[in-house]
Amino acid sequence: MSQGRFITLEGGEGAGKSTQLRALAAALRDAGLEVVETREPGGSEGAEAIRALLLTGGADRWSARAEALLFAAARADHVEKTIRPALERGAWVLSDRFLDSSRAYQGQGALSDADILALHRIGSDGFLPDRTVLLMLPEEEAAGRAKARDGEVSDRIGGRASDFHRAVADAFARFATQEPERFRSIDAAGPAEAVTARLMAALADLLP
Amino acid sequence: MSQGRFITLEGGEGAGKSTQLRALAAALRDAGLEVVETREPGGSEGAEAIRALLLTGGADRWSARAEALLFAAARADHVEKTIRPALERGAWVLSDRFLDSSRAYQGQGALSDADILALHRIGSDGFLPDRTVLLMLPEEEAAGRAKARDGEVSDRIGGRASDFHRAVADAFARFATQEPERFRSIDAAGPAEAVTARLMAALADLLP
Repeated sequence: MSQGRFITLEGGEGAGKSTQLRALAAALRDAGLEVVETREPGGSEGAEAIRALLLTGGADRWSARAEALLFAAARADHVEKTIRPALERGAWVLSDRFLDSSRAYQGQGALSDADILALHRIGSDGFLPDRTVLLMLPEEEAAGRAKARDGEVSDRIGGRASDFHRAVADAFARFATQEPERFRSIDAAGPAEAVTARLMAALADLLP
Repeated sequence: MSQGRFITLEGGEGAGKSTQLRALAAALRDAGLEVVETREPGGSEGAEAIRALLLTGGADRWSARAEALLFAAARADHVEKTIRPALERGAWVLSDRFLDSSRAYQGQGALSDADILALHRIGSDGFLPDRTVLLMLPEEEAAGRAKARDGEVSDRIGGRASDFHRAVADAFARFATQEPERFRSIDAAGPAEAVTARLMAALADLLP
């Protein structure tokens, strides 16, 4: 049995995480690995029910504090019901967003990074990915890609001002600097195939 | 304007909290006070949506950790949207369950009391009631009352073994000992009118 690995893709709206996650999953399956594709918020039955609460309603439906607790609850369910069981049977689990998105988004307001990490300790024993790949894209390009998509941009999380998205990007870059072993930052601009090649290179040391 | 007060009723299933809350509200309104009756989980639009997640599904739908986070999220919304605004306009807010129920119920398993209190600090700034009245009832009598009611006993929270309910009762009694200024314990046995009189006496020092 191969060793299971937990890989997360992080970055702002429009960085290409979903597209790259599918391409990465295909490449890993071609290499003979079992791959589970998942996302946050969501990724398990209970977490998807919480996702529905988080992504509907006006921007002020939830306070930053309630939102952070809901994300942590969804993540606890996702880790317990989907991620850990898959890793235990030797699968690679690829998640479109995870803890670092909570740190980057909910950590902008009333809550400190220490608070977000405390919620993750209480909810999920502080469980961390084996590797987190940060997809970096210049702000204008990310905004253009996000606008070109249908629907998702107008949800509660995506529909915010550009200074907010800049603060999120700065936060991701800071986390990558703080944890150089777990994080790899890659350029997400250019053809999708080239980005996928950079992504595979960022995981090369983990491959069997 | 009178000073707003936040009063919570706590105790196990079948202790008579809902009945006593209604009677207390009527007595306080007779005394000329504005009274808001509420409950947990729930008490605000967002918290009621979370309540629906918490009280449906099998007993193993949520882990103790996810459950504690959901309760804390619901409480954050309840405090922010319902309790604080009512107190600020001088109302008395009566809640059927609050933080101490999370401590007594979710604190039995994977989570320590310190964890539950940390969630409350992060979610609601550690906001506490002015007075918490613990309704004490012998186990057999509480079980009989709970069985006599329709529906609620079979929900996810109520449908557990008697040793669990004994541990909950012990936890409530411990909290009351730890915070003698905030807590009052009253005998919840006997005629409802007599219990209401004990409840009013337990609040006498707070009345205008």
